[in-house]
Amino acid sequence: MLRAQGRAVHQCDSGWVPVFVDQEQSISLMSVGFLLESPDEAVVWRGPKKNALIKQFVSDVAWGQLDYLVVDTPPGTSDEHMAAVEALRPYGPLGALVVTTPQAVSVGDVRRELTFCRKTGLQVVGIVENMSGFVCPHCTECTNVFSRGGGAELARLTGVPFLGSVPLDPELTRSLEEGRDFIRDFPQSPAFPALSSIAQKVLSEAPARLS
Amino acid sequence: MLRAQGRAVHQCDSGWVPVFVDQEQSISLMSVGFLLESPDEAVVWRGPKKNALIKQFVSDVAWGQLDYLVVDTPPGTSDEHMAAVEALRPYGPLGALVVTTPQAVSVGDVRRELTFCRKTGLQVVGIVENMSGFVCPHCTECTNVFSRGGGAELARLTGVPFLGSVPLDPELTRSLEEGRDFIRDFPQSPAFPALSSIAQKVLSEAPARLS
Repeated sequence: MLRAQGRAVHQCDSGWVPVFVDQEQSISLMSVGFLLESPDEAVVWRGPKKNALIKQFVSDVAWGQLDYLVVDTPPGTSDEHMAAVEALRPYGPLGALVVTTPQAVSVGDVRRELTFCRKTGLQVVGIVENMSGFVCPHCTECTNVFSRGGGAELARLTGVPFLGSVPLDPELTRSLEEGRDFIRDFPQSPAFPALSSIAQKVLSEAPARLS
Repeated sequence: MLRAQGRAVHQCDSGWVPVFVDQEQSISLMSVGFLLESPDEAVVWRGPKKNALIKQFVSDVAWGQLDYLVVDTPPGTSDEHMAAVEALRPYGPLGALVVTTPQAVSVGDVRRELTFCRKTGLQVVGIVENMSGFVCPHCTECTNVFSRGGGAELARLTGVPFLGSVPLDPELTRSLEEGRDFIRDFPQSPAFPALSSIAQKVLSEAPARLS
């Protein structure tokens, strides 16, 4: 998605140097993918080894001064999540941005994620609903591919802010496939105002919630 | 999906009695969900505890005589996958049915799953592509919501059988939401022939591949 595949991580005096996405070095990345020899290699690791690497990604990477550190976790409430919460706790993380899709099955998983956040003392910045309906490019009618409103309903039930819904958008998925700049290339796309509004809410409301 | 939420697991002389979905007891289920007190409870378990439960689900459940045992795993190549492969190895499992979506990002994950299967000696029955295009119910035009053909291409590259593509289908997702019988209620739905053909291929080709 960020055209960073195949890039390598180097070592400097203050630790691992993250991979920079752009020339201005405005986005830096770290991933186990950069440490593997082949992109097909499976990371067949049990929990303790994963936990150790997650701790290293927090402590041993020369991140420099960051505005935001985004940790993209797999679904679930297991080793990766516990390791990330523990490693970042001393830095006072802003909290969890919880993403669901509209179906009841997915909302059920996310309810358990919210329980995990409560148990581990991690604040929930808000809930985002992804894959919320599809606007047909042929007839412009919107269809709910999955069911509807699960994210907003879950936010209401659990007393967590609802940040918005992102529709299924072939232009967005194509941009991610090709590593293109969606914001520059598709400002008219239906996913654009949705993503922009969610980002604004996170940036403006989150610091207030921390105080 | 199977209207089994809230059902409980009981103990008999030969172990845990699985939950039966229908009166004929043609489908029996076991899930950690049946062992929790509340559906919102998060299973905040590290690897070793998950591994132990997966072993128990194989050895301590009174499964009786089964035609097929289906293990639905999370994505990835971690504790759950290793524990399931190890626990089932003495029973000569048929193999892995690998599901991807069409995008390159998802196909990349699945390449690593295939590497995992090779490393652990698990045969791959075939690849299924899910969420392959959306037939608009308003204008009947088909749109590739994600990109196209990733599953078939991956099967070709890795020499694994390609079993078919399942389109995004609001009638299927609604059936799963409401625990309805999709096969009985929506035989005209575009996902029906796709699912039926994949099931036939698994049933007819898989035993031959085992010999």
